[in-house]
Amino acid sequence: MKSRNEMIEAVRAEMPERRWTHTVGVMETAVVLAERFGADPVKAELASILHDVAKYWQTSRMETIIREEGLPAELLQYDKELWHAPVGAFVAEGDYGVGDLEVLDAIRYHTSGREGMTLMDKVVCLADYMEPGRDFPAVHKIRELAEHSLEAALIAGFDSTISHLLEQGRRVYPLTVMARNDLILYVRESGR
Amino acid sequence: MKSRNEMIEAVRAEMPERRWTHTVGVMETAVVLAERFGADPVKAELASILHDVAKYWQTSRMETIIREEGLPAELLQYDKELWHAPVGAFVAEGDYGVGDLEVLDAIRYHTSGREGMTLMDKVVCLADYMEPGRDFPAVHKIRELAEHSLEAALIAGFDSTISHLLEQGRRVYPLTVMARNDLILYVRESGR
Repeated sequence: MKSRNEMIEAVRAEMPERRWTHTVGVMETAVVLAERFGADPVKAELASILHDVAKYWQTSRMETIIREEGLPAELLQYDKELWHAPVGAFVAEGDYGVGDLEVLDAIRYHTSGREGMTLMDKVVCLADYMEPGRDFPAVHKIRELAEHSLEAALIAGFDSTISHLLEQGRRVYPLTVMARNDLILYVRESGR
Repeated sequence: MKSRNEMIEAVRAEMPERRWTHTVGVMETAVVLAERFGADPVKAELASILHDVAKYWQTSRMETIIREEGLPAELLQYDKELWHAPVGAFVAEGDYGVGDLEVLDAIRYHTSGREGMTLMDKVVCLADYMEPGRDFPAVHKIRELAEHSLEAALIAGFDSTISHLLEQGRRVYPLTVMARNDLILYVRESGR
């Protein structure tokens, strides 16, 4: 596995400066959330460093990886914005030498979410929604909810994504709806 | 199969008067939409007569049918509002002698929708959204869209359902999202 500094240098070279600023925001926020909710902050930071590694790759390059490396082909029928997450996990493993499944899954599902999200999945996905550089109508509510509930904050995050897609007449990735459904049950059953 | 009048009498006895008024609204609207978009109006009316036949059945009675008659068990994990549609199709076939799969499917999917909705599915589902007794924020827009596009109107209907569930913090049935996704592709590809 590359060292932390090697990774930071390599990932930074993959994206415009403003996206690197976003990545730093996600790293810092993920560490705070991990400490708040009992996840491993070192792993949370590692997943955050790498989460957008493939974000600025050409569509055709991502498509080739999805097709040839056995990533879920149904992704190709949905928004390209979803592709960089599973491709990022593939790159994190192959090019950066990350072997920890918890870290790889947090990268893989940071955009879509999934049913049965792990604590690490939730921390990275939520950090991506609420890092300090983010500015959209629901972000204040999400940050407020994140003071006490990872799940309630994440539901508010998915709500904002789904509402936005409805308004724009765009398709909604079913896994995101299933992730939100699952979090609602989790909150209801755990009382968090 | 029971006669039209026998069905009307039997279904009417299954529900309060205001729901029967709704059913008459769906019947009339479905006939108009069928004629407008080239579906069989007789079948559209038949499906409409029966679409809410199980709406006022006790939850336990619907649950027994879902469990014992091999209806999709995942329904039991979702909103009870969804149950009367597949149970209604089962009752339409078993108790009313309806054998036409197009009619049965239109009853079965009138609440959730599905991927690959048939013309008849669309007509009955949309009639249920926009019959004259309906009054909710999006209904005027839905009626306007229905002048020209069954699919665009139905997308607006599903949008309003999904938005309402998001606002209420309730789970969204994934099949409804998949129905909407599919209609968006249909509109994009057919230009309707």
